[in-house]
Amino acid sequence: MNADVLAVLTNLLGDERVSEKEADRVLHGRDQSSHPLHLPDAVVWPQNTAEVSAILRLAHEHRVPIVGWGAGSSLEGNPIPVQGGIVVDFQQMNQILAVHAADFQTVVQPGIFYKDMNKILGQHGLFFAPDPGANASIGGMIANNAAGTRTVKYGATRDNVLALEVVLANGEVIRTGSRSVKQSAGYDLTHLIIGSEGTLGLVTEATLKLAPLPEHFSAVLATFGSTAVAAAVVYQIIGSGLGPAALELLDAAAITYMNQDESINLPVAPTLLMEFHGPTTETLQSELQLVREICVDGGATYFSAGVGRDERDRLWHGRHQLGETLFRAHPGEKYLITDVAVPISHYPEVAAYTADLISSMGLKGALFGHAGDGNLHTVIFAPETSKDADLQWFNDQVVQKALHLEGTCTGEHGVGIGKQKYMVHEHGEAAIEVMRQIKQVLDPHNILNPGKVLG
Amino acid sequence: MNADVLAVLTNLLGDERVSEKEADRVLHGRDQSSHPLHLPDAVVWPQNTAEVSAILRLAHEHRVPIVGWGAGSSLEGNPIPVQGGIVVDFQQMNQILAVHAADFQTVVQPGIFYKDMNKILGQHGLFFAPDPGANASIGGMIANNAAGTRTVKYGATRDNVLALEVVLANGEVIRTGSRSVKQSAGYDLTHLIIGSEGTLGLVTEATLKLAPLPEHFSAVLATFGSTAVAAAVVYQIIGSGLGPAALELLDAAAITYMNQDESINLPVAPTLLMEFHGPTTETLQSELQLVREICVDGGATYFSAGVGRDERDRLWHGRHQLGETLFRAHPGEKYLITDVAVPISHYPEVAAYTADLISSMGLKGALFGHAGDGNLHTVIFAPETSKDADLQWFNDQVVQKALHLEGTCTGEHGVGIGKQKYMVHEHGEAAIEVMRQIKQVLDPHNILNPGKVLG
Repeated sequence: MNADVLAVLTNLLGDERVSEKEADRVLHGRDQSSHPLHLPDAVVWPQNTAEVSAILRLAHEHRVPIVGWGAGSSLEGNPIPVQGGIVVDFQQMNQILAVHAADFQTVVQPGIFYKDMNKILGQHGLFFAPDPGANASIGGMIANNAAGTRTVKYGATRDNVLALEVVLANGEVIRTGSRSVKQSAGYDLTHLIIGSEGTLGLVTEATLKLAPLPEHFSAVLATFGSTAVAAAVVYQIIGSGLGPAALELLDAAAITYMNQDESINLPVAPTLLMEFHGPTTETLQSELQLVREICVDGGATYFSAGVGRDERDRLWHGRHQLGETLFRAHPGEKYLITDVAVPISHYPEVAAYTADLISSMGLKGALFGHAGDGNLHTVIFAPETSKDADLQWFNDQVVQKALHLEGTCTGEHGVGIGKQKYMVHEHGEAAIEVMRQIKQVLDPHNILNPGKVLG
Repeated sequence: MNADVLAVLTNLLGDERVSEKEADRVLHGRDQSSHPLHLPDAVVWPQNTAEVSAILRLAHEHRVPIVGWGAGSSLEGNPIPVQGGIVVDFQQMNQILAVHAADFQTVVQPGIFYKDMNKILGQHGLFFAPDPGANASIGGMIANNAAGTRTVKYGATRDNVLALEVVLANGEVIRTGSRSVKQSAGYDLTHLIIGSEGTLGLVTEATLKLAPLPEHFSAVLATFGSTAVAAAVVYQIIGSGLGPAALELLDAAAITYMNQDESINLPVAPTLLMEFHGPTTETLQSELQLVREICVDGGATYFSAGVGRDERDRLWHGRHQLGETLFRAHPGEKYLITDVAVPISHYPEVAAYTADLISSMGLKGALFGHAGDGNLHTVIFAPETSKDADLQWFNDQVVQKALHLEGTCTGEHGVGIGKQKYMVHEHGEAAIEVMRQIKQVLDPHNILNPGKVLG
């Protein structure tokens, strides 16, 4: 990157908000995936849309790669600056600009972290429902169309964003969508930007759809003789119209890891963990009765349920720690996180296939997922001395299986680096060509997160 | 259109599926809006994707306008062939290709009408939830991102389409999306096509998300002293977490029209009409109790509720006939249908403003809408001798008000012809320019429904 560009940036943002320091570059060189570090040439911290626009105009003119940065918590290398250039860190654009409580909406800057945001929104009795687990930034969630345990009821990020302000590659600022939840007025640019991983524009403001904080909770934990039996119950529960707020599958290995916590002592078996939200405890009680019937009829070998926030927390304790528990049990080892999703009728098959593969390859790790929407994760570990190719081969097999079952190579982590090679298989050459044309017209010099999504 | 093109079409489809007859052209020259008739040069009836692709390749080469046609039930002139050319009627592509009951999905051709489709899906205990009222085609619903009374719970068409097969302007066939309900794999072409009103491609197959047919129904009808009071209750109900399956507002005039049916005798006052779906009658009973409390606390002057399908039908009878009743009461008169949507906190204001305007202009008609999602309709009538400009002035005022209240010029009918003039105001020039660039790259010769959406 030439010195002129840096000089202009420094002139624009001041010394304090432009850094070429090694430490800053390292901090912005990798996310939480296992993809290797790439250093950007510089990191900048804009404070408003006009600055982001000026940065992009400059980068557009000088053909400098630009990568947006939120919390760095993504899991597929999505913000790793593989071609160097400038990382635009949104940490100083992290304000809630408005809470429209009567409309169940908030307007925020992209740098806000969703857990921090939800704490503030809680004071209004509201929350942003998609929950990626990690304390991701809203900008990052939009970039990757993130989702999580509550998506089965409330949808993914793409279902909960109403409007965006976006700075295009050339520095132009557009506004998409509307504060109206309904809109049929032209092309849906909001959804085009969501999930585009910073390759079509940088989001500088987002209007989010919120949900009322549930007044009443109930939770259910049920175990089954096999993953396939548990998965069949998933279908029964969705089909009953019960509308669970979470419906998670955990394999026996995941439960074993969870049981390492002294306060947890669950039967080691494939487990469904559910949560329900309702307007009254009476409605929840009557729902729990139905859930119990479905689980028992479906072959549950253990069933525990309860109404109330404490009961919910009791049953969910452990699930929330699972990621951390896994990494603590395998210090320094190589790891890989998979993220496929399939139609739920194929969930038993992809889960059984993946479990068998883990076992036949002698890999350590756990299988778990958002069963209610067909999303399956594994975190697998291998000794530091093992070959990367083995983990990669495992990933390939799981993805191929998911695609064969009419699924996707990525349910919620995005394409980033690791999933690019599956894109043509998943979409076909003709659809990929349309994506390329759109990229070309919106970012003709390929400065926005180059080397991602379409390569 | 030159004779060569017709000869090739006839060669491709046979005499019976290519028509230049006046009667066929008239039938495909206008929809159910008040926009004037434009005759296409010819109408064709393809039977498969390969034929649609061949038609488009030909049209692309010869620069012939192409307009897709479903049921002709749209309300904004969306499929009127304003530049002539070929209307592609999907009537012979109206099959259900698959029902994936275990996944709550179906794969259909675009020409199927949604009421016909739902009859068949009902045998599987499933239904496609967005309900535009008219017996629209699925292709048309996708083109216009149609919605209706159940959208408050189940979403609009855009929330219920998982995957598409689309023929592009040049005849290329792409597949978008996935049968997996979750997907973060690249640009969201599915949502780009939904709501593009046939200007970016023609949908030849759609994978739809279905809902389980509700086992149990309840319904509520409550009247209030003013529209503003009724609208405040809307917010209370949404905020309670009750999740109504429908939440409709009707003004006193609408109720007066409904009361023309001998079997209906409702209090003439602003009215909320609600429907709830639940897994058991017990959950519904307990929900109704809460609804009653909210309505009574909110100032309801009349409240009627009941559990069960018959009770639902009793309370909703009349609402389903409203459109027809209105047109029967004003034979031969000029009419205009409005379709704005705003954030629900602004719903009382846009409703009161619109009601006042109807009254101050001495217009006849009714105001009603999908209050739960901020969508307001009016159907207004004027003597045949009145000036078009008056109705248009009314529409302008209502749209300007909605845009001023951070809403949209069209909640569910699409841009078509009548809403083009508001697009720059609603989106800003920069966003419209992005839409134009996307149109240009996907349809460089502007053959797909020319003169619509962006003009």
